[in-house]
Amino acid sequence: MSYPDDLREAVDHHLETIHFSSDPATAGLDESMRYSLLAGGKRIRPVLCLATARSLGDEIEPYLDLAASLEMVHTYSLVHDDLPAMDDDDLRRGQPTSHIKYGEAVAILAGDGLFAEAVRLMAATEGDPARVLEAVQLLASATGVEGMVGGQYVDVTATGLDRDRLRHLHSLKTGRLIRVSVETALAYGGVAASERGPYQQFAAELGILFQIVDDILDVTGTDVELGKPQGSDERHGKVTYVSLYGLQEAKSLASQSHSQALSALASVDGETDYLRRIADYIYMREQ
Amino acid sequence: MSYPDDLREAVDHHLETIHFSSDPATAGLDESMRYSLLAGGKRIRPVLCLATARSLGDEIEPYLDLAASLEMVHTYSLVHDDLPAMDDDDLRRGQPTSHIKYGEAVAILAGDGLFAEAVRLMAATEGDPARVLEAVQLLASATGVEGMVGGQYVDVTATGLDRDRLRHLHSLKTGRLIRVSVETALAYGGVAASERGPYQQFAAELGILFQIVDDILDVTGTDVELGKPQGSDERHGKVTYVSLYGLQEAKSLASQSHSQALSALASVDGETDYLRRIADYIYMREQ
Repeated sequence: MSYPDDLREAVDHHLETIHFSSDPATAGLDESMRYSLLAGGKRIRPVLCLATARSLGDEIEPYLDLAASLEMVHTYSLVHDDLPAMDDDDLRRGQPTSHIKYGEAVAILAGDGLFAEAVRLMAATEGDPARVLEAVQLLASATGVEGMVGGQYVDVTATGLDRDRLRHLHSLKTGRLIRVSVETALAYGGVAASERGPYQQFAAELGILFQIVDDILDVTGTDVELGKPQGSDERHGKVTYVSLYGLQEAKSLASQSHSQALSALASVDGETDYLRRIADYIYMREQ
Repeated sequence: MSYPDDLREAVDHHLETIHFSSDPATAGLDESMRYSLLAGGKRIRPVLCLATARSLGDEIEPYLDLAASLEMVHTYSLVHDDLPAMDDDDLRRGQPTSHIKYGEAVAILAGDGLFAEAVRLMAATEGDPARVLEAVQLLASATGVEGMVGGQYVDVTATGLDRDRLRHLHSLKTGRLIRVSVETALAYGGVAASERGPYQQFAAELGILFQIVDDILDVTGTDVELGKPQGSDERHGKVTYVSLYGLQEAKSLASQSHSQALSALASVDGETDYLRRIADYIYMREQ
């Protein structure tokens, strides 16, 4: 069973329809935001959101704006992480990064704009206001100091991370947004907080798995597969699962994490085929 | 009648209570965010929000989180605008700017974090979910491409602005956030959209007045009054109301704008004393 490309295509089609400005004065900003947003990729976060909707027995259409806003937040984080003051990366998915193409000022604003428009899109989702509001609360919490931005802060400032602190860093930096991709769908779908446990365990494990595999691929992948120079973690002096555990142990950790994700999924009361295929893809992916 | 310092003090006290992290790993990020947030100032946006609440006959306490989130968004915009790639300013309110004190990476993240936490705080405001959700929608819209971020994009990229385009720039960059400071209070206070017209006219005019006076003060103020070097607009090559209209005509425009703001306020059905005092302050202020 392969990655749910039908869901990914639905996300891509929906993202294509989104324009941020009809005002000539800001057309260049709109262009820079769409440049990064439409650069491709597996769309793991929005696909997770839609797969969760399907597991609840729902059609995906009402969830498309939620899904798009999650991808917009992810893209914003990539644009800011690539900046010269941060990771100083010139390539992303094989293309020049935003600040290389548009300059640093526009890249900062493209990231800021994607975040604001993500909140706007999610908050404007049709449906029960209490459910939509909870989705927005979850998103804001996952992107703030106790989430993505806090994780990036640890990543750029911390030195000499040990195993616990590395895990904590990634639970903030990448884990929270992956978890919230599932959680926003649960909130919008009206799943009571008391019923979300297995989903949350699955998503938390998926976030860990994602990062371990990412660290492995930075060592074992090729430039073409990665869309960026192989070995960039080491050149950036980054502590990774591979640098702390070694390649074989990191692969073993990935295998355990994959098993635990599937085990959590077994307790989900619903059609979990899509979610399982995402976990399998993240575990087996080569780029 | 003077500026409503009682409301400003309520805002300052409330902001003091806000901490963004109890996690040692992100304590430095919390510190940098609070450094910029607690740097003082007149708190015009949150005070406008609270003054609007008072005009509705409401107590201010339920509105304090909304007010704080508006100031957090404003602070985030200042931190990013000051960055080397943007306006490259070293001083703000007489103190080193965030990137001077904490470095550029942390300053970018402090801005990102303040924005996320502002959304989080506003979305978590107690009350009718539909009203809170509308406030969040308004905030996101005012900060996105058709608001603050779009205005900053025009500011850093546009050349040879004429009068219409200067007005458009400022209606996006500073005007939308000032307007939304009133509008979020109206939404949360349950004022029907059809009843908001006079408030919106007042707030829109106030935004224009604010910018005209800001441009005048950059020419006539002293370094100490401004908290930054006088004449910085001219050195940055910025088109301003003074550069386009001349000082005397700019002062005349400010006077007209102040009159129109008060005229709009006369149609507001409520206790508008606080709102009028804010307009008077913005018109007469010397820093």
